[in-house]
Amino acid sequence: MSTVRKEIGIGLVGYGFIGKVHTMGYLTLPFYYENAPYKVKLSGIASRSEDNRNRALFQAGYNFASEDYLELMERNDIDVIDCCTPNKLHKPVALAAMKAGKHIYCEKPLARNVEEALEMARLAKETGVKSKLAFHYRFVPAVMRAKQLIEEGALGEVFNFRAAYLHSGYIDPNRPMSWRLLKEESGGGALFDLGSHILDLMRFLLGDFEEVQANLETFIKERPAAGNPTQKLKVDVDDLVIMQVRMKNNSLGTIEASRVATGTNDELRFEIHGNRGAITFDLMEPNWLKFYDATEPGKPIGGRRGFKKIETVQRYPEEPVFPGPKFAIGWIRYHIASQHDLLASLVEDRASLGATFEDGLRIQEVMAAAEKSAETGSWIKVERNIL
Amino acid sequence: MSTVRKEIGIGLVGYGFIGKVHTMGYLTLPFYYENAPYKVKLSGIASRSEDNRNRALFQAGYNFASEDYLELMERNDIDVIDCCTPNKLHKPVALAAMKAGKHIYCEKPLARNVEEALEMARLAKETGVKSKLAFHYRFVPAVMRAKQLIEEGALGEVFNFRAAYLHSGYIDPNRPMSWRLLKEESGGGALFDLGSHILDLMRFLLGDFEEVQANLETFIKERPAAGNPTQKLKVDVDDLVIMQVRMKNNSLGTIEASRVATGTNDELRFEIHGNRGAITFDLMEPNWLKFYDATEPGKPIGGRRGFKKIETVQRYPEEPVFPGPKFAIGWIRYHIASQHDLLASLVEDRASLGATFEDGLRIQEVMAAAEKSAETGSWIKVERNIL
Amino acid sequence: MSTVRKEIGIGLVGYGFIGKVHTMGYLTLPFYYENAPYKVKLSGIASRSEDNRNRALFQAGYNFASEDYLELMERNDIDVIDCCTPNKLHKPVALAAMKAGKHIYCEKPLARNVEEALEMARLAKETGVKSKLAFHYRFVPAVMRAKQLIEEGALGEVFNFRAAYLHSGYIDPNRPMSWRLLKEESGGGALFDLGSHILDLMRFLLGDFEEVQANLETFIKERPAAGNPTQKLKVDVDDLVIMQVRMKNNSLGTIEASRVATGTNDELRFEIHGNRGAITFDLMEPNWLKFYDATEPGKPIGGRRGFKKIETVQRYPEEPVFPGPKFAIGWIRYHIASQHDLLASLVEDRASLGATFEDGLRIQEVMAAAEKSAETGSWIKVERNIL
Amino acid sequence: MSTVRKEIGIGLVGYGFIGKVHTMGYLTLPFYYENAPYKVKLSGIASRSEDNRNRALFQAGYNFASEDYLELMERNDIDVIDCCTPNKLHKPVALAAMKAGKHIYCEKPLARNVEEALEMARLAKETGVKSKLAFHYRFVPAVMRAKQLIEEGALGEVFNFRAAYLHSGYIDPNRPMSWRLLKEESGGGALFDLGSHILDLMRFLLGDFEEVQANLETFIKERPAAGNPTQKLKVDVDDLVIMQVRMKNNSLGTIEASRVATGTNDELRFEIHGNRGAITFDLMEPNWLKFYDATEPGKPIGGRRGFKKIETVQRYPEEPVFPGPKFAIGWIRYHIASQHDLLASLVEDRASLGATFEDGLRIQEVMAAAEKSAETGSWIKVERNIL
Repeated sequence: MSTVRKEIGIGLVGYGFIGKVHTMGYLTLPFYYENAPYKVKLSGIASRSEDNRNRALFQAGYNFASEDYLELMERNDIDVIDCCTPNKLHKPVALAAMKAGKHIYCEKPLARNVEEALEMARLAKETGVKSKLAFHYRFVPAVMRAKQLIEEGALGEVFNFRAAYLHSGYIDPNRPMSWRLLKEESGGGALFDLGSHILDLMRFLLGDFEEVQANLETFIKERPAAGNPTQKLKVDVDDLVIMQVRMKNNSLGTIEASRVATGTNDELRFEIHGNRGAITFDLMEPNWLKFYDATEPGKPIGGRRGFKKIETVQRYPEEPVFPGPKFAIGWIRYHIASQHDLLASLVEDRASLGATFEDGLRIQEVMAAAEKSAETGSWIKVERNIL
Repeated sequence: MSTVRKEIGIGLVGYGFIGKVHTMGYLTLPFYYENAPYKVKLSGIASRSEDNRNRALFQAGYNFASEDYLELMERNDIDVIDCCTPNKLHKPVALAAMKAGKHIYCEKPLARNVEEALEMARLAKETGVKSKLAFHYRFVPAVMRAKQLIEEGALGEVFNFRAAYLHSGYIDPNRPMSWRLLKEESGGGALFDLGSHILDLMRFLLGDFEEVQANLETFIKERPAAGNPTQKLKVDVDDLVIMQVRMKNNSLGTIEASRVATGTNDELRFEIHGNRGAITFDLMEPNWLKFYDATEPGKPIGGRRGFKKIETVQRYPEEPVFPGPKFAIGWIRYHIASQHDLLASLVEDRASLGATFEDGLRIQEVMAAAEKSAETGSWIKVERNIL
Repeated sequence: MSTVRKEIGIGLVGYGFIGKVHTMGYLTLPFYYENAPYKVKLSGIASRSEDNRNRALFQAGYNFASEDYLELMERNDIDVIDCCTPNKLHKPVALAAMKAGKHIYCEKPLARNVEEALEMARLAKETGVKSKLAFHYRFVPAVMRAKQLIEEGALGEVFNFRAAYLHSGYIDPNRPMSWRLLKEESGGGALFDLGSHILDLMRFLLGDFEEVQANLETFIKERPAAGNPTQKLKVDVDDLVIMQVRMKNNSLGTIEASRVATGTNDELRFEIHGNRGAITFDLMEPNWLKFYDATEPGKPIGGRRGFKKIETVQRYPEEPVFPGPKFAIGWIRYHIASQHDLLASLVEDRASLGATFEDGLRIQEVMAAAEKSAETGSWIKVERNIL
Repeated sequence: MSTVRKEIGIGLVGYGFIGKVHTMGYLTLPFYYENAPYKVKLSGIASRSEDNRNRALFQAGYNFASEDYLELMERNDIDVIDCCTPNKLHKPVALAAMKAGKHIYCEKPLARNVEEALEMARLAKETGVKSKLAFHYRFVPAVMRAKQLIEEGALGEVFNFRAAYLHSGYIDPNRPMSWRLLKEESGGGALFDLGSHILDLMRFLLGDFEEVQANLETFIKERPAAGNPTQKLKVDVDDLVIMQVRMKNNSLGTIEASRVATGTNDELRFEIHGNRGAITFDLMEPNWLKFYDATEPGKPIGGRRGFKKIETVQRYPEEPVFPGPKFAIGWIRYHIASQHDLLASLVEDRASLGATFEDGLRIQEVMAAAEKSAETGSWIKVERNIL
């Protein structure tokens, strides 16, 4: 324990569901990464809810709480602003943080539209702070392994893929209106909420998008107001997006995001076919990456060719892995790995797999192209803004 | 055995791979359907290959063989012409058969284009013969059960689906040229060969297509001539088609057919989400239909809600089922059930699940719309020809 | 077609369910094995049922039928006697056949007890005829591949295994009495009917048994008489057997056979763990052998280590494979491969994977040890009779 | 936040791997159970390792640390002693705790033998403290649901089951000696380490054991000393146990525990067949309980009968569930639920699913019977000690 660890103070904005997830992540980091070069301090919280401020102070142990996130920006004991607000606030929070010289970790999607995203990514570049997005699925061991295999050439030239992120939570027409169902608050529906994740993953694995053809659909067009079931409010975002995409590497794919996929829980999945191999993954079976090596002999009687469930389980590169590589993991674990990636990269000069604001901008550009395609019914090139 | 069974004489055209499959089907029908109201007679075969004619005569037991399929049309002992030729010959064979008053069972797709298909379907209507297509996947027990569940309303309103038929057989660029790779012979590539099957299934389950948006891709653009590897021939059909479709019932779906999907064998699959339930199926696990009933209670601790692998195994409606409902079945079995459906419908006044020439025409219209969309990049309404 | 094929005449005894299965197998052999060195002739059938004799003659095309199986023994056009009777008749039929110089293909288990089996195996040895058993699961491609992998040393030293054959058909206490539930007719219950199969497979894969410890259980102790539901008859065979076994190779395993395993259809499965690898198989997913190679690197992030679903599908060693290696197969297919193995071995000097009467005797000895152990509650060495 | 929560002070003994797991559990409880009626205080730690004491103090935030666990017993701010030591110390730690009036939460198995366990369970009864064991697999949602289904009668009369807990971590003969491989330290090998878990689960689900027949096997009989590879030490515990068991409810089962099951990670699984239904579970797919309802109609074409993957995911009875019921969970989660069960039961008068010292004693009695059976080769009745 003679190691010197750098203390990193966290200021978290928004202590709703995802703010609690991130907070729990910070508290458990010392177990998963016992020898990490940093030490986290829960310095401050900003939330408009008194109850949440109290929970943050007395359950989680934050040192300071305020209604106003700007107060966090002024504090010297805060190094990183973690933005867990509704999408609408991502920009003002992030800009304030960066202007105050804080590093920033932001929930996805980066913003409500390309304009906001561009402003954020540009300021990140100008200020030189670390700007990261919680595209935490990059940190599923199976996804990390998939990226390695693709980079090693194990798939060869990629021809075709299909990917989807499927939820069923909005299938009930009586689920009340919320900020995720209002374009003004969220920027978009399934495309923004779930689509941003799966788009980021496919770009993480296969590189940039060239063009998209998309369809956005709202099946349940109005919903009761929260707390007032008789009042019906108009839903102005999509329940479902289906896309055809062409990547810069010339592969063709279909991508889908749905909040009304009956029978699914949290089903993010992809299948990628190359001329040398293939991989498939499903987040509801997160412990395995399925890999097919087409160069293996198929004779006699099948030889050794077939889809292999690589036991990625909790095989993170860090060693020792806590609580052990063989134990099945779940959704919380990728958040923790994503937060570790951010924090370690603040201290050490190390490669980071985490998404940056620039990555967030690129996804925003793809989503904008999808929206435009859905309006026009035709293929739309993804426009790339210069930072 | 005092039952009177009607003898039905078969004249089969084309004794290649699929002709042999059908022939084996006819020979095994008396076992699977012991009490069927018909008795099959292998009356005649037409093939240009002497070797195949001899095999048909001496291995399978056909009574008559000819190089010229027209000779079959003249024979009184033939009731049904079974057309197992390359696509190019479907029209001339079927027209000749129908003109001769024969019933017709034709391999898929119906023809090379809508014009051919329309002529065939119209003649079928005029002559009143039974005209059927070997869309045999309708006869997988799991598919039959899926249709029942949808018709019972078990899925409720269908929102969204995805379907694919994936092969990998053409991934090797050294696989030589063949009729399936020439538009003149086949009418099309993956779209025609595999796509016609999956399109028929989705129409069988969900009703007619309204519009499509499609992309056709040829990854391997030339291939060696058969028997002359140094000669390279141009491939003028698709290896892959990906489509977005909107059905008349307003559901949105993605449909894909590929001959270059590394890692797959014979993977026809679909997933359909409605607001009351969902179903999924994969032909490489043919013994089960997965069904999710969203109306079941989900509490406590999951209640009884979840995807159920309905054990459709060999649960055909006919009883007794041979060799027994519990035994795993495979690809051959659906052909046999499809042939039984045809033959029984010739003898008994019974509903038939088998596809007709009109069904074949409808699929041809969808494929034509897909081709047009692939050219223009935009959504194309499926044009419906009047019979 | 200038190939000379040897004609082999079949005389089949017992045209019930399994007799029909074998017959259908003979009829389809020319399709699956187009270039086989033999030609099958359905020469004669013996059955006590007039209806079955008629079906055999007029549906299947046997040339001759008799009530008395001894008549088959006298016919010169019969080379092979295929015994599809209840177990009680295996011995008299097989002895008569062998004495008449016929080859013999017998359904499993070989006999009702070791004494009968020994007499049969000894006569087979004396007469030198080919004597085979329908342990057709040896001919599942996945099982054939498993055997190869074990012989190649891919599992290393085998430590432990578990195997089971699970049916649920007798769970209903109203299922009436039949010969399979009477020791006098069958020799035993789940142990004989299903256990013989799984015991044969484990011996096929792992070699001889050293000792066993077994428990036999009859859960449903009486059943209604067939055709007279009010009359209750005593069941004197087991519904379930569970065994611990030690093989001569020192591996330890559990083996189970059940007719009352709710939720199963035809679930024969095994898992074998060695110090270099492991394999698992389930007959309800017959197209895949799962193989784990422990010598593959497990780093980084899982490396390439994991269970692989080797796509054994229809990858029989014979080529070309009909109807093609990629098509899912089912239960009927292994019978056909087993029958081909027998017939080809009659004509060609080739290795045969099929079980012999001696193999059948060895399984009978294991079953006898299991019965003795169930009585005494202790481990029993498997006694090996000298032929 | 006006709720009054009772503060519960934890004193943890042994800050190795499992001590850290428990500690992380305590820290995250306020997130998973936001409205719990207790508040945890990490009061004290005892560990012989200075490094671990420092980690506990400075990473986890314990208030006090000592080399000597007896110091914890004297502190007033400690309500619960959590014993995470090697098995050998369970008895002295637990006795000291109970004598000091502390509640006790102990890692499994309860002790090294029945004598120790009996003394512990008796003192628990005498003192009336809460005495619990970390049989945390009881708190997998799928297991909790399985228990409910069995209690509801959804399986009917249970006939047969099979259960196993399979690890592969000791397959490498070069893995060095450790306390888990020494009977003096651990009490036993796979039987004690893994077997205790699976035995507890089967008893949790099916009730008490009547008799067992067991085999213990040590495949790797010596191992290198830790830190001195050339020194070989004798392993005196089992790598593998296979058992046949008869429960008091008359069901028959096989139970297995292995540390050398190549190809497995953390594979605890069970299958239970009753005359009305069946359930299966596998810890490496922890989000689902598979349930088969044999009373559902099987017609037509399979009806609605089949194994259903009940989506137990994170469907704990407590609501709201954090971070949400749809998110896949892993191994850590069951520990947290087990700890919550203990702490809530200290504060509220509520039923607890957690195992008590008496439950631990019953498992110890089964393990003792298994050891005796392994020596004698025969069935051994499980002796039940009176508390």
